[in-house]
Amino acid sequence: MLRVGVIGTGMIGQDHIRRMTTVLSGARVTAVTDVDVDTAKKVAEGLPGAVLHTTGEDLIADPAVDAVVVCSWGPTHEQYVLASIAAGKPVFCEKPLATTQDACLRIVRAEVAAGRRLVQVGYMRRYDPAYRALKQVVDSGQIGTPLMMHCAHRNASVPSFYEKEMAITDTAVHEIDMARWMFGEEITAARVLVPRKSRNGGALQDPLFLILELAGGAIVDVEISVNIRYGYDIRGEVVGEDGTAALGELSPVAVRTARQLATPVPADWRERFLLAYDVEIQEWIDSMAGAGTPVGPTAWDGYAAAVVSDAGVAALKTGTRVEVALAERPALYNLGTVVLS
Amino acid sequence: MLRVGVIGTGMIGQDHIRRMTTVLSGARVTAVTDVDVDTAKKVAEGLPGAVLHTTGEDLIADPAVDAVVVCSWGPTHEQYVLASIAAGKPVFCEKPLATTQDACLRIVRAEVAAGRRLVQVGYMRRYDPAYRALKQVVDSGQIGTPLMMHCAHRNASVPSFYEKEMAITDTAVHEIDMARWMFGEEITAARVLVPRKSRNGGALQDPLFLILELAGGAIVDVEISVNIRYGYDIRGEVVGEDGTAALGELSPVAVRTARQLATPVPADWRERFLLAYDVEIQEWIDSMAGAGTPVGPTAWDGYAAAVVSDAGVAALKTGTRVEVALAERPALYNLGTVVLS
Amino acid sequence: MLRVGVIGTGMIGQDHIRRMTTVLSGARVTAVTDVDVDTAKKVAEGLPGAVLHTTGEDLIADPAVDAVVVCSWGPTHEQYVLASIAAGKPVFCEKPLATTQDACLRIVRAEVAAGRRLVQVGYMRRYDPAYRALKQVVDSGQIGTPLMMHCAHRNASVPSFYEKEMAITDTAVHEIDMARWMFGEEITAARVLVPRKSRNGGALQDPLFLILELAGGAIVDVEISVNIRYGYDIRGEVVGEDGTAALGELSPVAVRTARQLATPVPADWRERFLLAYDVEIQEWIDSMAGAGTPVGPTAWDGYAAAVVSDAGVAALKTGTRVEVALAERPALYNLGTVVLS
Amino acid sequence: MLRVGVIGTGMIGQDHIRRMTTVLSGARVTAVTDVDVDTAKKVAEGLPGAVLHTTGEDLIADPAVDAVVVCSWGPTHEQYVLASIAAGKPVFCEKPLATTQDACLRIVRAEVAAGRRLVQVGYMRRYDPAYRALKQVVDSGQIGTPLMMHCAHRNASVPSFYEKEMAITDTAVHEIDMARWMFGEEITAARVLVPRKSRNGGALQDPLFLILELAGGAIVDVEISVNIRYGYDIRGEVVGEDGTAALGELSPVAVRTARQLATPVPADWRERFLLAYDVEIQEWIDSMAGAGTPVGPTAWDGYAAAVVSDAGVAALKTGTRVEVALAERPALYNLGTVVLS
Repeated sequence: MLRVGVIGTGMIGQDHIRRMTTVLSGARVTAVTDVDVDTAKKVAEGLPGAVLHTTGEDLIADPAVDAVVVCSWGPTHEQYVLASIAAGKPVFCEKPLATTQDACLRIVRAEVAAGRRLVQVGYMRRYDPAYRALKQVVDSGQIGTPLMMHCAHRNASVPSFYEKEMAITDTAVHEIDMARWMFGEEITAARVLVPRKSRNGGALQDPLFLILELAGGAIVDVEISVNIRYGYDIRGEVVGEDGTAALGELSPVAVRTARQLATPVPADWRERFLLAYDVEIQEWIDSMAGAGTPVGPTAWDGYAAAVVSDAGVAALKTGTRVEVALAERPALYNLGTVVLS
Repeated sequence: MLRVGVIGTGMIGQDHIRRMTTVLSGARVTAVTDVDVDTAKKVAEGLPGAVLHTTGEDLIADPAVDAVVVCSWGPTHEQYVLASIAAGKPVFCEKPLATTQDACLRIVRAEVAAGRRLVQVGYMRRYDPAYRALKQVVDSGQIGTPLMMHCAHRNASVPSFYEKEMAITDTAVHEIDMARWMFGEEITAARVLVPRKSRNGGALQDPLFLILELAGGAIVDVEISVNIRYGYDIRGEVVGEDGTAALGELSPVAVRTARQLATPVPADWRERFLLAYDVEIQEWIDSMAGAGTPVGPTAWDGYAAAVVSDAGVAALKTGTRVEVALAERPALYNLGTVVLS
Repeated sequence: MLRVGVIGTGMIGQDHIRRMTTVLSGARVTAVTDVDVDTAKKVAEGLPGAVLHTTGEDLIADPAVDAVVVCSWGPTHEQYVLASIAAGKPVFCEKPLATTQDACLRIVRAEVAAGRRLVQVGYMRRYDPAYRALKQVVDSGQIGTPLMMHCAHRNASVPSFYEKEMAITDTAVHEIDMARWMFGEEITAARVLVPRKSRNGGALQDPLFLILELAGGAIVDVEISVNIRYGYDIRGEVVGEDGTAALGELSPVAVRTARQLATPVPADWRERFLLAYDVEIQEWIDSMAGAGTPVGPTAWDGYAAAVVSDAGVAALKTGTRVEVALAERPALYNLGTVVLS
Repeated sequence: MLRVGVIGTGMIGQDHIRRMTTVLSGARVTAVTDVDVDTAKKVAEGLPGAVLHTTGEDLIADPAVDAVVVCSWGPTHEQYVLASIAAGKPVFCEKPLATTQDACLRIVRAEVAAGRRLVQVGYMRRYDPAYRALKQVVDSGQIGTPLMMHCAHRNASVPSFYEKEMAITDTAVHEIDMARWMFGEEITAARVLVPRKSRNGGALQDPLFLILELAGGAIVDVEISVNIRYGYDIRGEVVGEDGTAALGELSPVAVRTARQLATPVPADWRERFLLAYDVEIQEWIDSMAGAGTPVGPTAWDGYAAAVVSDAGVAALKTGTRVEVALAERPALYNLGTVVLS
């Protein structure tokens, strides 16, 4: 039974606690902490045997904590992840790994210095059954070498604090990570095109069209529409030399009424990716018990996502193509590779 | 943490043990037994702290067992379920509840005498997301009162010991339970039509066409094809007054190659209903901790399925319409009802 | 240029005239007649060079008429088809060929006596691209020998004069012809099951479930729902030994709005089968210029449909399985045969 | 009966002759000509009453020719279209209208000088039922103002003489015309991105990614893959403020075999757009008889397509964003406008 300490008991932290407590197998939440002490206390009271810590550092040091989950405010991620590495404890950090690429690189270097993988970043799409089936087809070689990928990331609406750059840093960052994983290659440049503005976005420029170039020459385009009203819709089609493979339609039910055949569209990301989150955390727990080290998205993946996001934001601001300048990748981190028959 | 004893450590028993041990939350397997002592011993050795019992009765009596899962050979189900009831312990029994309708009725009466629900039967389709979405649409009233349902139950192949009657008792029995649940009504009569025989079935008559009548007049038809080679395919469409609702296509990926747009079909029931089994057992575990009593398919459901199966077999043998004669339903058991707006 | 005389200038007659005049190639309407003289006169006035005849017999005798189209009231079909045969002129007769099986048989015998095919009956589904693609797959052998077929014939609503038996004689008669053509076999027995009644049908028993047995043992089931409100929907899936083939979804557009992905359903048979009617008549015209004789559905097909319809009506009235008793099929008529690889 | 003269009796010319002679209504081919006299002679011999002319100019002058169809080699289009305008005869010209934008503009000016529409250009997608259904949804306003459109134009393979620029001028030119029509706006700029090269294209750079900007700010992206092996696939999804609308799947049949549910993909453009060509020419014929003037794609549309194609080619060569510089649009030509509720 993996004993997990959770730093940050807000919405996502509580959701992961619920998941580890009532859905998944092999883990127990033994410690929690949050800057909002009242919330943290209330959460701790619902967890028999769990300890409430005053600081994240205390929680990390707790001998009853085998592994750490970081769900706190983004700017605090770096310190808790570094402290976990220093303590030699595995740490699952919700995205972003840190709020700047320098901070991400410090984490990468700390982990490299530690000599083994301890950090996993919360890019949960890699655990979605549809994306996994898509990657399996691509890797099988049946569509030939992948040359392009068309993506759409659509939200029904976004909160009022959502700002233009968040379309890259918060929304399309999922496609940024997914594309690196799907193609097994780094992203080398980004462009952002700006279409006619939707009235639904108010002052916000919405939609955007992000275009990514990969090391091997493939191009990935991403429509980002965050106020499209009709639902939450994530789409992706990989175009290969001999065919294409796309995320399927996961429609539990098909209804014929009123001159239409209709299938439901998810309301939001919770509905769409519920299962992916479950699989993500279960596999993380299992990897501790198995390999003793996480096997999911790495600190390097978190760093690369940050650097590409920065390039995307610069592209958005300048209207130009912006190249991505990554540090050299340490040997600790291998990208998944596309195997062709 | 619910402490579960598992009677029967064959394929399904081992699968439920794996599930409760490494996938789900809130349960621990503390005791096992099987007539095949070697297998049971091997399974027990893989479960730290689990006790190996010589008999099912010993296991049921074990104070470290809070609830029982019966996965043994069908003819032994009755005795273990009755023993569990006698011990006042909740028992999850894989289908069939018992091998004769009389045996099922004895279980029903024992449970009624005990005065509270202890028994749940393993009809896992009620936990499948697609069936649940379908039932939700039907219950919402948006297609009007349901009048018919068209079903197909297709297996790629069946083992050599599979006999003609098993098409009803082992295969279509899932549709029998599902139809009662979907319509919230008892089945009142059965017919079996016999189409041209597939060469794939050898001596076996395959396919069959089962037609069920429900108390309110609805008709449910079920194509049973158990050697159809192309895959495992479960289909269902409810026809209402104003529209229809069907199980959707759950296709994680859509591939365009070689002049075709293709989506995968599952290989077998494990692939198709993996998630349903997980949800089934998790909700069973949760109901113990919550209501303290199971809320899934009841002993009555197991009994009704047995009686309708017998009618189906008689219909197959005689070529006639056979009426279903159920005992009076005790107040302990309510059928889910179709709520129309 | 085939010179066509049209008997009956009601809705369907006018539609065929429009088709031959403004859509198709190779034909010209040179003569019309109708018991409703005013309508016929008006139609004739819109057709430069067309003659208005007082009777169908006059029209058939007109030397400026090469071929006859019969769209008059059903009870008059026999006399006009017989007169056409007597005149040695090809005749396209809208369904039904005649209103009784005896009348149909008289036509068959007259044509056999004439020694060559002159009659074609208006079963237009054989010309629908989707049905043709379905038959091509079945004939290719890729799903193995066909064993069953599941059909649904759904109308949004029917007029107030629609009576219970018309569900067989007017509605399901299309499936009766289609099944004979799809399987290349005669129908040997019919049954009708009566589900719970829809409130939308008023006094009418709706839906019905027609079950047909074919000479080779295959079973074809047909859901007949004629007040299902949501649209006109024709569905069919052939179940073979190794797989299935179904009519596809012909959705010109897929719309994502309001939490749904929706594709349109046709409003009525005109919309659904518009193209099939065009192809039917064009191929009829072409066959005159080519083989000099019609190659579509024969008088025998019209006769067989009548006999099976009668069996279906008897099955509906008696609640029993009714066998189909056909006369011996003359050598002039071959059924299409299912060719298996 | 419209008397049509056809200039150019190669593959497309013969196909239009077949269409007007044996498929459509209201036209007759009365004259043909071609630089390849043997072919023209053979074609003429198959057309009773048709005259073989030595030159296109002779054909245009023939009093037995009411309207002209130009299917000759591209570089000759200008002269025949100008001659038709000079003769005051309606002319249907296969794409391109002419091989340079200057030549197109000369045609525009000649037509404006003539004071009425005589020219129609063969952009047949506007006649495809799927595109029309898509445009109807967009125009209805149910997805809000259209902001983006994602397109793919995929060919299984291209002939050996196909050169890089033809991906714009011959292939994507269809999307160029379609986008102008769909949005009811001119295209103002073009970009071409160059992904990793497919091994299937040999020396050819394939695929390409064309990005078009429209006057109102909408962006249209077009994947151009001309050696993708799996079939001919044309896709399009309009992204609006409140939802999206996409070309549907026109699958006549759905086959379940070998672990797959598969629907066919067309082999080539003939199969995919057969019906669109029929509708295009029929509506052209009908417009002569009705309004007396063509109502399809105009000389201006042909001109605009040429200018945008040139911009696309320049963008491909330079790797930059190239603005589209159109002449002022004469009052004779109105773009279809997107009507929003």
